Amino acid sequence: MSDLSAVLDHIDRDLDGALERLFATLRLKSISTDPAYAAETRRCAEWHAADLAAIGFEASVRDTPGHPIVVGHRRAGNGPSALFYGHYDVQPVDPIELWDDDPFEPSLKTRADGTKEIRGRGAADDKGQLMTFVEACRAWHAVAGRLPIPVTVLLEGEEESGGVNLPPFLDANAGELAADVALICDTNMWDRQTPAITTMLRGLVAEEFVIRAADRDLHSGFYGSAAANPNHIVGRIVADLHDADGRVTLPGFYDGVPDLPDALRRQWETLGFTTEAFLGEIGLSVPAGEKGRSALEQVWSRPSCQVNGMGGGYQGDGFKTVIPSVASAKVSFRLVFDQDPAAVRAAFREFVKARVPADCTVEFTAHSSGVATVFDTSRDVFRRTREALSAEWGKDAVFIGSGGSIPVTSHIREKLGMDVVMAGFGLSDDRIHSPNEKYDLVSFHKGIRSWARILDALAA
Amino acid sequence: MSDLSAVLDHIDRDLDGALERLFATLRLKSISTDPAYAAETRRCAEWHAADLAAIGFEASVRDTPGHPIVVGHRRAGNGPSALFYGHYDVQPVDPIELWDDDPFEPSLKTRADGTKEIRGRGAADDKGQLMTFVEACRAWHAVAGRLPIPVTVLLEGEEESGGVNLPPFLDANAGELAADVALICDTNMWDRQTPAITTMLRGLVAEEFVIRAADRDLHSGFYGSAAANPNHIVGRIVADLHDADGRVTLPGFYDGVPDLPDALRRQWETLGFTTEAFLGEIGLSVPAGEKGRSALEQVWSRPSCQVNGMGGGYQGDGFKTVIPSVASAKVSFRLVFDQDPAAVRAAFREFVKARVPADCTVEFTAHSSGVATVFDTSRDVFRRTREALSAEWGKDAVFIGSGGSIPVTSHIREKLGMDVVMAGFGLSDDRIHSPNEKYDLVSFHKGIRSWARILDALAA
Repeated sequence: MSDLSAVLDHIDRDLDGALERLFATLRLKSISTDPAYAAETRRCAEWHAADLAAIGFEASVRDTPGHPIVVGHRRAGNGPSALFYGHYDVQPVDPIELWDDDPFEPSLKTRADGTKEIRGRGAADDKGQLMTFVEACRAWHAVAGRLPIPVTVLLEGEEESGGVNLPPFLDANAGELAADVALICDTNMWDRQTPAITTMLRGLVAEEFVIRAADRDLHSGFYGSAAANPNHIVGRIVADLHDADGRVTLPGFYDGVPDLPDALRRQWETLGFTTEAFLGEIGLSVPAGEKGRSALEQVWSRPSCQVNGMGGGYQGDGFKTVIPSVASAKVSFRLVFDQDPAAVRAAFREFVKARVPADCTVEFTAHSSGVATVFDTSRDVFRRTREALSAEWGKDAVFIGSGGSIPVTSHIREKLGMDVVMAGFGLSDDRIHSPNEKYDLVSFHKGIRSWARILDALAA
Repeated sequence: MSDLSAVLDHIDRDLDGALERLFATLRLKSISTDPAYAAETRRCAEWHAADLAAIGFEASVRDTPGHPIVVGHRRAGNGPSALFYGHYDVQPVDPIELWDDDPFEPSLKTRADGTKEIRGRGAADDKGQLMTFVEACRAWHAVAGRLPIPVTVLLEGEEESGGVNLPPFLDANAGELAADVALICDTNMWDRQTPAITTMLRGLVAEEFVIRAADRDLHSGFYGSAAANPNHIVGRIVADLHDADGRVTLPGFYDGVPDLPDALRRQWETLGFTTEAFLGEIGLSVPAGEKGRSALEQVWSRPSCQVNGMGGGYQGDGFKTVIPSVASAKVSFRLVFDQDPAAVRAAFREFVKARVPADCTVEFTAHSSGVATVFDTSRDVFRRTREALSAEWGKDAVFIGSGGSIPVTSHIREKLGMDVVMAGFGLSDDRIHSPNEKYDLVSFHKGIRSWARILDALAA
């Protein structure tokens, strides 16, 4: 029996143990965007460092100005070295009332068809996914006493809250983190049967603005229409961001956005994607966004502007006839190809300022920023990973795009000079960022097996 | 010494006692729009009934399907009878962090210039104002053992939350509530020196809508722009409600809205109103609303549309890249002259529906509804009240409009067939509906004296 076969057998036998360990980290409320959870976020980092140490990594919790970063090294062995990236922080859980269970009390649910899913905040994004890699290492360690290649694990604690402290950390520790290839497990399969390597990601610019008008909330009878209403100003800005064809109206927004290359378009056409099925899965049927472009093209290769949050005035039960003094919005842009995040942010701020009356003020807060990423799939690491995935799943892995943004991917590519192979086992119905987030047990189990194979393949 | 002189003297001597009683009702959290305060709202009604009983009224707390109504009769005496209306409920207190003190722990503050103000939720709207009338009755009761005219007091508990139970109550008890004139104390002076009788009020239509799109919150990377974003839909509706000239765009909205009659325009021009001072008091300088109309004309005689609340998606600290499944807005229309509330509500719903994509839903909730009110100031009761006010304040009282809505005014006029004299002592800087609501001690003190004089004048 080869080492790999023994490792795969061990993974099958130890699945309950792997689940127990995953549940342990899922119970830790590592909500990075909310300062109330800072201490528990640190405890989560410490849990992962201890877990890595238990399987032979030289692991440490590294302070940053924000939440800590976990680094683990297991440098022994030959072959090309790999830097694995995951993030141990999670999204907030509101609206909490829509969860079937406590988001931080994970459980294994059996579905009507007999298959099982892991429930809990972070089950898929990203604790479940990152643990597929850790468990693969654990199995190699247990069976062979070695990893096939030298591995460094890097676990971030601020992926869901801007990640501003990771780039300087990469800069400051570039030597320590150097490797031949980066591996990330934070993406989806193409579908339940088809493994995928994500080779295109959209960039992200996230921006918040607050409009202030009168120096107090006003009675809407005594002051309307004479006094400026910040809700109206925010509404106007939100509406003006798109034209009637669904295009974003920021001047220069489409600079650096080419039409989809024919080769890509042909490849994507073989995937069997339909807009109807894509939208139907979430209870919708009418494509929004740019007219005349498929949903797949929009999400993978076209930029987007989304108002992720907005609010002003009285939002409680009943009614309050108030003109609020303040209203605000959180707006994000997904970028593709060569769009420049700084230029988009600057254009957005000018766009907003032009719509604020002279007696009102606007204040901006910059959140995330990252360029889009497109990898050259003819490189050797992509071929080896693809073959390992295809062997595990019994179906050829496909190269796909993703509408999401993993800023670290571009940071790693730029700051550490590596290719980044993004292989993940999430599914489109995982409800990440939403109530009742889940990760299929099959994703977890075969995800672990997949990484065990990939580590072996990269050593060959 | 006439009875009136003795009553006014008594009022001066008993001011501390009057304040103690006002503070007792201000401490009761009668927030009618929030079901959490239902029990305390009832306690407030019971407090007022007991207080009226203590000064010779036959008082009772009358159940309704919502919060109770307090009715007190003191029918003895001759002369024209009066029905006094006030409301004992108050607005919510959010944003609570902007209050200097607990909104329900009232206090008397001395300002830099040595004058004093009563602080607390309801200090002006409407507990402070309604207690000016009750205290005037108390003084007459104490000094003369009688009121100058038969009086019925009616205190509503749902003025700030739609008031849907008052009109049927008026219908059901029209005989019991019959009187020659209605008196309301829920309006403002023209300025600190000039008493006013409000003879024009705007009507109100309040409406809430909720837009639902996908069956869950979505990751804005994986679904934007292809999936409908309810924030965008609400923003579009809010923006479309006004054209570039500040006019409301609902079809038929200006039906029943005449140009301001010349006589009214000339009278208002003598008031010394300036848009600069009006806006400057609240930290603004640029008139919003309809172009080419003064702020006074807009607020008193033009209809208005205000978005009092709106919200969708993540509004907490930090950033969440979500496409929310739900967004909503609370919108109110102030109506003038002969605008039809039902027609405005229907037009608004059509307007909203036309902007909701076919795969999204909209749900409406009707809140308040009331027509505008314009009284004939040549009637005798207006002359008598004006003379009494002018005597107390040493300056001629003026007839004014108000941008606010007191739906009960039109209900009383229509259902009980009375003129309604609205004399109030609020000031434009009272911050009603806002943090740090206050009522000038002078308003309270001279307000009590004013009602003592008005009761006397109506008997003459």
